[in-house]
This record gives sequence, structure tokens and C-alpha cells, in this order.
Amino acid sequence: MKAIILFGHGARDARWREPFDRLASLWREQHSATPVELAFLEMMQPSLEDAVASLVSKGASQITIVPVFFGQGGHLRNDFPVLLADCQKKFPAVTLSATLAVGEDLGVLQAIVDFGARAL
Amino acid sequence: MKAIILFGHGARDARWREPFDRLASLWREQHSATPVELAFLEMMQPSLEDAVASLVSKGASQITIVPVFFGQGGHLRNDFPVLLADCQKKFPAVTLSATLAVGEDLGVLQAIVDFGARAL
Repeated sequence: MKAIILFGHGARDARWREPFDRLASLWREQHSATPVELAFLEMMQPSLEDAVASLVSKGASQITIVPVFFGQGGHLRNDFPVLLADCQKKFPAVTLSATLAVGEDLGVLQAIVDFGARAL
Repeated sequence: MKAIILFGHGARDARWREPFDRLASLWREQHSATPVELAFLEMMQPSLEDAVASLVSKGASQITIVPVFFGQGGHLRNDFPVLLADCQKKFPAVTLSATLAVGEDLGVLQAIVDFGARAL
């Protein structure tokens, strides 16, 4: 079974995660056959490892991790590959893969431009 | 004249800003009558104040600032309003306003969900 993890940075302020909770809800409404979990790099739970464990316990065998970051900076270029490799070692029976950061997607950038245009 | 500032967090790794540069290019292609500048909270230039100054020098009288952040955490709830008020004091002839973070927009969230769905 395929599954998806929406992976964000995390922040001290609990309200920061509201759009992430909304993202997960949207996913569940539209793609109910594919389980989703949130995961955070720091300051928020669950960790990437906990999210993978949760999806594996639901029967996931192929997990795609989507970094919900704008840019590919140090976190995604340095910290994330190490985390991902650690998770893969701990869960050898599941196939983990990752996409580019969502900020690399033209559709996401266009939605931001359209939001700005509506606000003028 | 109206203008827009796309305001991001900033990061140490210069490559982090690539999606922001792409956003500004998209804006210029699609909304050429409305000047755009990027601005960053920390670690990258220009600052919000420098971006406002640049747009004012081009004749902007109404500037909308779009926080290109996912969540409304401490940076947007605490740091950003202070920065914005400081800029407004320094440039009393221009009207500054700010939108919510782009992560509050359903169109942006939907684009992220669609990106994830295509990656499965």
C-alpha cells in the first residue's frame, strides 16, 4: 500500500501547524485510499521516524515524503537525507522516497502569485 | 501606484532563495504593471525596509506585503508586525498592508496536495 508524509519544518508556536493540519485534511478528503501523516524536522511532533512507523503499522509498503518547504536549503540538502537514510535502515521492508520541496513546483508558485494578485 | 513585496524567511544557503526568485519572475511576467520586490526576515537581502525604499523610489504609493510562509508562527505574529510598523513610520507617504501567510490560502494548499498526488 502507498502512503504519503507531508514533512514540515516545525515551529515553537503551535498555531504554526494549522496549515499543515488543513493540508492533511484536504488529502484525506481527496485521496482517502492513500494514508497520510504529517511529520516535522524539529520542535513539533511526530518526527519523520514516528510517522513512518505509524504508516507501516497501517500496512504501508511504499511511502512518498513531500517536503513542505519553499526552498531547498541546508535542512533539505543536509539534514533531511540523513534522516531519510536512518528511517530506511530502521524500516527495511518499506520503500521510502522523497520529492523535491513543494516550492520547486510551478503549480504551487502560481497559486502564490494568484493569491498575491487577489490581495492587491 | 500599487506594488507588492513577497516576504520570505531567508536562509544561510543561497540556493534556498531560488523559488523566491522564480516567484518574482512569474509575477513580472504576469503582472508587469505592478512592481514586485522580494524581502527577507533574516539571513538574506534585501530587508523589508530596503524593499519598501526601492519600491517607493519607483513611485509606489500602496504596497501589499505577502508573507511567503506556511504557518503564522512567532515570526509572523511577533516579529513581522514590529518590522511593518517601523517601515510605516519611516515611509509615512506610502500605505503598507499585509496579507495572511500564503499557507492560509486554500489555493496554495490545494496546489501542494496536487503536487503530492502527482508524485505517488
